[in-house]
Amino acid sequence: MRGELRKDPATGKWVLVRPRASNNGDFDQGACPFCPGNEHLTPPEIAAYRPPAGESRTGWEVRVIPERDPYFLIEEDLVREGIGMFDRISTRGASEIVVESPDHGMTLESADEAQIERVLWMYRDRVKDLKRDLKIRNVVVTRRHGKPGSRIQHPYSRILAAPIVFDDLRAELTQAREYYAYKRRCVFCDTIREEVTIGDRLIQLTSHFAAFVPYAARVPFELRVLPRRHASAFEGIGPDEVADLARLLKSLCGLLVKGIGDPSYEITLHTAPNLAVKIVQGEWDTIERDYHWHLEILVDPEQASGVSGIAVTDMLPEEAARILREAGSLDTPRG
Amino acid sequence: MRGELRKDPATGKWVLVRPRASNNGDFDQGACPFCPGNEHLTPPEIAAYRPPAGESRTGWEVRVIPERDPYFLIEEDLVREGIGMFDRISTRGASEIVVESPDHGMTLESADEAQIERVLWMYRDRVKDLKRDLKIRNVVVTRRHGKPGSRIQHPYSRILAAPIVFDDLRAELTQAREYYAYKRRCVFCDTIREEVTIGDRLIQLTSHFAAFVPYAARVPFELRVLPRRHASAFEGIGPDEVADLARLLKSLCGLLVKGIGDPSYEITLHTAPNLAVKIVQGEWDTIERDYHWHLEILVDPEQASGVSGIAVTDMLPEEAARILREAGSLDTPRG
Repeated sequence: MRGELRKDPATGKWVLVRPRASNNGDFDQGACPFCPGNEHLTPPEIAAYRPPAGESRTGWEVRVIPERDPYFLIEEDLVREGIGMFDRISTRGASEIVVESPDHGMTLESADEAQIERVLWMYRDRVKDLKRDLKIRNVVVTRRHGKPGSRIQHPYSRILAAPIVFDDLRAELTQAREYYAYKRRCVFCDTIREEVTIGDRLIQLTSHFAAFVPYAARVPFELRVLPRRHASAFEGIGPDEVADLARLLKSLCGLLVKGIGDPSYEITLHTAPNLAVKIVQGEWDTIERDYHWHLEILVDPEQASGVSGIAVTDMLPEEAARILREAGSLDTPRG
Repeated sequence: MRGELRKDPATGKWVLVRPRASNNGDFDQGACPFCPGNEHLTPPEIAAYRPPAGESRTGWEVRVIPERDPYFLIEEDLVREGIGMFDRISTRGASEIVVESPDHGMTLESADEAQIERVLWMYRDRVKDLKRDLKIRNVVVTRRHGKPGSRIQHPYSRILAAPIVFDDLRAELTQAREYYAYKRRCVFCDTIREEVTIGDRLIQLTSHFAAFVPYAARVPFELRVLPRRHASAFEGIGPDEVADLARLLKSLCGLLVKGIGDPSYEITLHTAPNLAVKIVQGEWDTIERDYHWHLEILVDPEQASGVSGIAVTDMLPEEAARILREAGSLDTPRG
């Protein structure tokens, strides 16, 4: 076993313990392993989009490979054990890399919208496929841009599929259930309505999505992107929504670059756990009603500070929203 | 209002928002404001220990002052407001600094045990005093050593008193209650018994305390120090326990220095919320039975990494414990 999930009985929180391997599995430095022509440097491909023969485009457009030093492995048995009073689960799951483009220098703000759409479709395909594994309870997609000290500059996202519901999602599920039980409404749908009405934290409202700085942003610049149509699971997204979301992501990343100067950020996809797993469906039986998938964008997550579990920030969310909105108006000539 | 607590309706978590002041309230650089002779550089003293006249020691031994740029303020009214669907609470509370010694270079591993005892007594006094304020629900004491970029080197601790129960404590209270409801035993008492029996994560067992690396440590080197006597609140500590704890803290910090080379660390006191507040006592009516105060020591908390709310660490807790125990045996000649 390469690693294990351990539960702290005092806090209820899970920790992933993975003793250092002698070779930590990083890719060799030098040639970029994600660039076209270097496919032999990566483990075998899991999935890829390639244009049909005859089209002018060639080669892969988006490519998925396993992580070299994976947190979770499809080859692991799912083992739940008690070690005395303690709980432990094996790291059955998956750790995948989505190489987002053949272009080493692609960024979301400079990319073709069609390319961002392909990346989103690949997220959809992988989440759907991974949820076919009934040992997997939770799939998380993260996209990190400009991480300090990061060795790989080629644009990629990470997909983690785990045998537990991660703590962040569990907290949201609990909260969404409590809110619905009290209000008979989805807390996310209510939040969209509220942010649109108030307007001072709203960044963009498109046909299918609302993007805003949340009321209780944990870092000076945090964004949430919520689909206006209530849906608990991302993988039910439709073509119009994908096109709209691609445009919106490009635009939001453009605002970050123009407004605060190409910051480091992390995008995380929050979607319902695997409802095909009976025990998850049993525990969270009202999830489709209560929960609402969304994206969270945290700028400079490493700079987040806190005390005893509460985040501390020195920027008013309304002020952060104003800065980003103004960045957007800079290059929009008024008629 | 200098700041406010905002609750995220999607996660249930609190965020402290404090817009930057034009002068951020830091002490001037240059002379150390915490050294004897520079008392005029700090706000007026809240409390201090001074030896009785006639003893050879002079001046203050431990001194408590308000923070210059406080998170929470005793002068604030306690205001709970709804802003549309959102919740907000004013920052009524207190932010205090315990200057731990007149000696600018004091460290826990080099200090006199008597001096560490004085610091612990001062924690006790301040926690007790702050809990007399029925607007305060939670008091947290933290001691940071070797924080990267920290301007003040003089040894000090921070005391924060807040009008909410912080998320970390709330998670522990919930967990402890569920465990007791199921097992009819305190989860912390059970953990002590288990760690002493297994032994491979145990660092030290004294008359009154057990110190061990927790089963699900969140960073490579984490320590928990639990009183062997069940007690929910730190402020009920007795003289024998204070003396024992002072010795133990000095010894544990010595192990950190010898074992892993003077790392940066944070000690946090976890104690029951303010049970004099009726609504806290109402919500957590079994706290005295369920909960067990303790200290947590996290080495290099900034280096902690994680994904979606779960911590990821590359060190087996049993291995970390072995390294620290061996550090202890280095200078202990065997008979």
